[in-house]
Amino acid sequence: MNNKEGQQAEYTPKTTRIEAFSDGVFAIVVTLLVLEIKVPHFESGATNTEMIRELLHLLPKFIGFVLSFVIVAIFWVNHHQLFHSLERSDRKLLWLNNLLLLWMSFIPFPTALLGEYPLQPVSVFVYGAVLLLASVSFNLMLRHAVKSGLFDESISKEVLSKSIRRGMIGPLVYLASVLGAFVSVYISLALFVLVPVYYFVPQKIVKQEVSD
Amino acid sequence: MNNKEGQQAEYTPKTTRIEAFSDGVFAIVVTLLVLEIKVPHFESGATNTEMIRELLHLLPKFIGFVLSFVIVAIFWVNHHQLFHSLERSDRKLLWLNNLLLLWMSFIPFPTALLGEYPLQPVSVFVYGAVLLLASVSFNLMLRHAVKSGLFDESISKEVLSKSIRRGMIGPLVYLASVLGAFVSVYISLALFVLVPVYYFVPQKIVKQEVSD
Amino acid sequence: MNNKEGQQAEYTPKTTRIEAFSDGVFAIVVTLLVLEIKVPHFESGATNTEMIRELLHLLPKFIGFVLSFVIVAIFWVNHHQLFHSLERSDRKLLWLNNLLLLWMSFIPFPTALLGEYPLQPVSVFVYGAVLLLASVSFNLMLRHAVKSGLFDESISKEVLSKSIRRGMIGPLVYLASVLGAFVSVYISLALFVLVPVYYFVPQKIVKQEVSD
Amino acid sequence: MNNKEGQQAEYTPKTTRIEAFSDGVFAIVVTLLVLEIKVPHFESGATNTEMIRELLHLLPKFIGFVLSFVIVAIFWVNHHQLFHSLERSDRKLLWLNNLLLLWMSFIPFPTALLGEYPLQPVSVFVYGAVLLLASVSFNLMLRHAVKSGLFDESISKEVLSKSIRRGMIGPLVYLASVLGAFVSVYISLALFVLVPVYYFVPQKIVKQEVSD
Repeated sequence: MNNKEGQQAEYTPKTTRIEAFSDGVFAIVVTLLVLEIKVPHFESGATNTEMIRELLHLLPKFIGFVLSFVIVAIFWVNHHQLFHSLERSDRKLLWLNNLLLLWMSFIPFPTALLGEYPLQPVSVFVYGAVLLLASVSFNLMLRHAVKSGLFDESISKEVLSKSIRRGMIGPLVYLASVLGAFVSVYISLALFVLVPVYYFVPQKIVKQEVSD
Repeated sequence: MNNKEGQQAEYTPKTTRIEAFSDGVFAIVVTLLVLEIKVPHFESGATNTEMIRELLHLLPKFIGFVLSFVIVAIFWVNHHQLFHSLERSDRKLLWLNNLLLLWMSFIPFPTALLGEYPLQPVSVFVYGAVLLLASVSFNLMLRHAVKSGLFDESISKEVLSKSIRRGMIGPLVYLASVLGAFVSVYISLALFVLVPVYYFVPQKIVKQEVSD
Repeated sequence: MNNKEGQQAEYTPKTTRIEAFSDGVFAIVVTLLVLEIKVPHFESGATNTEMIRELLHLLPKFIGFVLSFVIVAIFWVNHHQLFHSLERSDRKLLWLNNLLLLWMSFIPFPTALLGEYPLQPVSVFVYGAVLLLASVSFNLMLRHAVKSGLFDESISKEVLSKSIRRGMIGPLVYLASVLGAFVSVYISLALFVLVPVYYFVPQKIVKQEVSD
Repeated sequence: MNNKEGQQAEYTPKTTRIEAFSDGVFAIVVTLLVLEIKVPHFESGATNTEMIRELLHLLPKFIGFVLSFVIVAIFWVNHHQLFHSLERSDRKLLWLNNLLLLWMSFIPFPTALLGEYPLQPVSVFVYGAVLLLASVSFNLMLRHAVKSGLFDESISKEVLSKSIRRGMIGPLVYLASVLGAFVSVYISLALFVLVPVYYFVPQKIVKQEVSD
């Protein structure tokens, strides 16, 4: 209602609409990742051993596929968690969200690069840099929402501060992976795997603090 | 409401949100399958007979396309049936669902492999293995939902037990197809076709038991 | 509620869920069509004239893209018209719908074939055959819904009969295009274009009969 | 209700359904753009410098990706703003919307062409022409909605007139870019970038006029 008056200059889609568009992008990105894994060409009389050997060469690509799938899925979960808590959106939030989606929709490229050249510092650097930019975009969105009071009133300031502090982990880890790429690719690769692991380990202390 | 308090540590998307994301992935997977069927190159003066002969070479790919389409569609129907009956979700359910979607979004690869090399044991093994992993993921999700009481209260324990028992058919058949691949690919291929057939045959006895 | 009791054997998704899944497939199909139009390779010192000449070679592919886009869009509109009028769904409707979606998701292949070899009888035959199968699937769905009383009660039998009669136009035209392909491809190509034209021409007489 | 009587001849999907389908197309288009950026082939012993040099060759494609992403996102925002203000739809609106979606779904092709040959007048011409056609389609839709009284009654005539006037900027700028392509590609490229910039600069005067 309200924004119909000032629609020309100030319209912002409702959070449900932004979520629907974002959901679409997230779902398409995870599903497009598989297109980078091409069926190898086998000779007509290829034995099982030969075929298995060829398929094993695809292992780095498959691992890259799984890694990117899990990372995009974590972004999706965090995205929903954030939007679920928002009371309203504004134009800046909308475009910070589009910035996040830009990096999300770009992910198939660094995934393909890393899958093709998994131990090259440049691949690792590019992969880390895109995740760094994505996690920074997410954080800018979170901070903007806190600063502009877009959250539901029922959410306490402590929860929001904790959320911002915790949200720094992603950018810091990905920054480390970017810087580490030219020192040792193994450090960076380990960091890529550690973020999901950290994410999945239950956080008892945080839980207790928050839920009582 | 409730999960806004403990959102930081315990947020889980509502089942409707998980369904929307999953629907997107299912819809994209079935639509991407066609990309593996490439138009063959014909000579400029190709006769109808030559063109038809070339197109007939695509028959295994087309059959693979139809088979995977039907299998993914069955997963989609079962997925909706499950989520329709859930009262709520939790974090573990969310990630078991993402595990299922990982295998779903991977399906274009084994479909392309099987379409290209339909009578190679390795292709049949890989195709069966991905379906085995998908159906096991689905079952883990179903069992977790039963164990953690996520179902609507109106659903009786007998229905749920029956559901779990019946849900074992997929994993068992796909396990058989995986083991059978190196004995005879025809056994495994027959099993791939039998699951949809079994699914479509009306089950009178189950119906009577359940609906009265 | 009702279908929770007999869910194991008789569950069918609500029409809204079927629509959401179908919408996804329709939207992806129209968007994937463009992937068949590849950027040609130009020499480094290519003149404007040379580039334009190369791009004009893509014209048949572009026309095929537009034609398939419009045809899929018409299916989408008719699909919504149908589901909007349905009161409920059943298992058979669900799978007839999946059969329609199978042909829809296959459309990028015949579109690519027709775009590559627009004047070959075989291309025209395949394109027409897929549209014939799609329109027959749609009609089976419509007839099943009428026969099983799935429509909203407010819809009169006359409207439904008219709907079925009018729904025969698509299958008949596409049957003619399939049969005509080996007589003259121009007849079939003309028929492909005529269906959208027929669809867009306002039908005054039908309107008057129906709306009073 | 109302359109169930005359459904055969006059059915038009509700605006929410048109939005859902359009959202799908917009989301898929922005996500498909990345598929045009292929991982280059490196020699097995490629140094970091060689890899970086190769990746820098992809810069025009990356810029094209970002540009098209932002332009499609702006169309998406304007699309939502429009449909949010509509009270109802009609058949003509539906097909003008499909015309817009046709150009949207075509965008990956001119983006790939521009990314591959960024300084060729023909690439710039084609890119500008597609955006011109898209923005004209949008304007036809807007004008039709105004003329046929599809807007919510609460929206004043002044707001709608202003909306139409402001909506002319896109077509005029893209017309200029099309005409300028054969004079200097840099003029046209600058115009492509200026539209988003214009869009993002806050418009204080308009705001004041509208919101009081």
